[in-house]
Amino acid sequence: MPGKYKLTYFDGRGLAEPIRYLLMFSGEDFEDNRLSMEEWPKYKSSTPFGKLPTLEIDGNVFTQSGAIYRYLGKKGNLAGNNDLENLHIDIIADVMVDLRTALVQAVWESDEQKKKEKTETFIKETLPFYMQKLEEVAKNNNGYLANKKLSWADFMFASLAENISFSFTSIVNFIEDYPTLKALKEKILSDPKIKPYIEKRKSTPF
Amino acid sequence: MPGKYKLTYFDGRGLAEPIRYLLMFSGEDFEDNRLSMEEWPKYKSSTPFGKLPTLEIDGNVFTQSGAIYRYLGKKGNLAGNNDLENLHIDIIADVMVDLRTALVQAVWESDEQKKKEKTETFIKETLPFYMQKLEEVAKNNNGYLANKKLSWADFMFASLAENISFSFTSIVNFIEDYPTLKALKEKILSDPKIKPYIEKRKSTPF
Repeated sequence: MPGKYKLTYFDGRGLAEPIRYLLMFSGEDFEDNRLSMEEWPKYKSSTPFGKLPTLEIDGNVFTQSGAIYRYLGKKGNLAGNNDLENLHIDIIADVMVDLRTALVQAVWESDEQKKKEKTETFIKETLPFYMQKLEEVAKNNNGYLANKKLSWADFMFASLAENISFSFTSIVNFIEDYPTLKALKEKILSDPKIKPYIEKRKSTPF
Repeated sequence: MPGKYKLTYFDGRGLAEPIRYLLMFSGEDFEDNRLSMEEWPKYKSSTPFGKLPTLEIDGNVFTQSGAIYRYLGKKGNLAGNNDLENLHIDIIADVMVDLRTALVQAVWESDEQKKKEKTETFIKETLPFYMQKLEEVAKNNNGYLANKKLSWADFMFASLAENISFSFTSIVNFIEDYPTLKALKEKILSDPKIKPYIEKRKSTPF
């Protein structure tokens, strides 16, 4: 019998890592299908909108990482208890996308001069701006980013914080400046259902 | 007594227009606060993450357009009836963001040569790719983009389709090629609670 969940992504963390964390945390078994760059073009045409990740759920293929995080969060009891709580979680999720977009635009910029400028802006302005705001949010929310309790948006944060560290060696320990966020990141990454995966995870470019 | 909802945005459609449509469609009265470019810097520091739109709900200020659409959709009975239906809606919403991002990157590109290239790619590749996929989705969903019934993501589509037409005179009638999507756009924009606003709406650059 095929498994309930099959995740398909490139062989990296990227947009798929929060999906992996959420599935692991919820104790769900899943197939972690990682495409090589050679396999991707062939698979691309079969995806709903030409993009990865996809998550197959009971044989149906779904796309869009953000929609998938929310769905798995709901399934794993990591959503809000009412519409207002879900609004708070969704805001943090969208803020994670904004911060991630700024990171990606710096990391993947092909023009060397522009990459230097974007990296400097990210490290000196964008990252501290968001991290200071988020540290304040976490302080006011019992160490979490919404509703004073763990939510699926916290998993997006933990993964993004890792990716920021991995992207720039000069700020590999940036999280040290934000003790509440550091504790949140560590709480998620050291969860007994996630930690074994991270410990044996190979290093990938993204 | 202050109103329940106060929307604050620039004096344009942009990210705020689906909020206006959703509030109007739900019959909610709201204050449509439009900042001039001179007023914006002063207001910016009071926003949760330095961005517009914000929506004040019963005196509390919320940010992130996508999170706000979903919240208002839920409140207006335009969400799904279960987790899987909401996943389908959220996927369309995220696809709208992808298409909107491609549009915005072409429209706001400052380098003239790059703007020309991005515009050509958008008009000849990105837009037809998404529109063909979405037309197929709508055909299979009773004329809507998810779950065979009207959802808040359809309002994002209607607003985005307007913005695409307004952005490029050469494809002002692009929707004609996609009859199911054209009907969906018209259904929303000709709704009796939305149409009067559109008829008297002034022309703005975005």
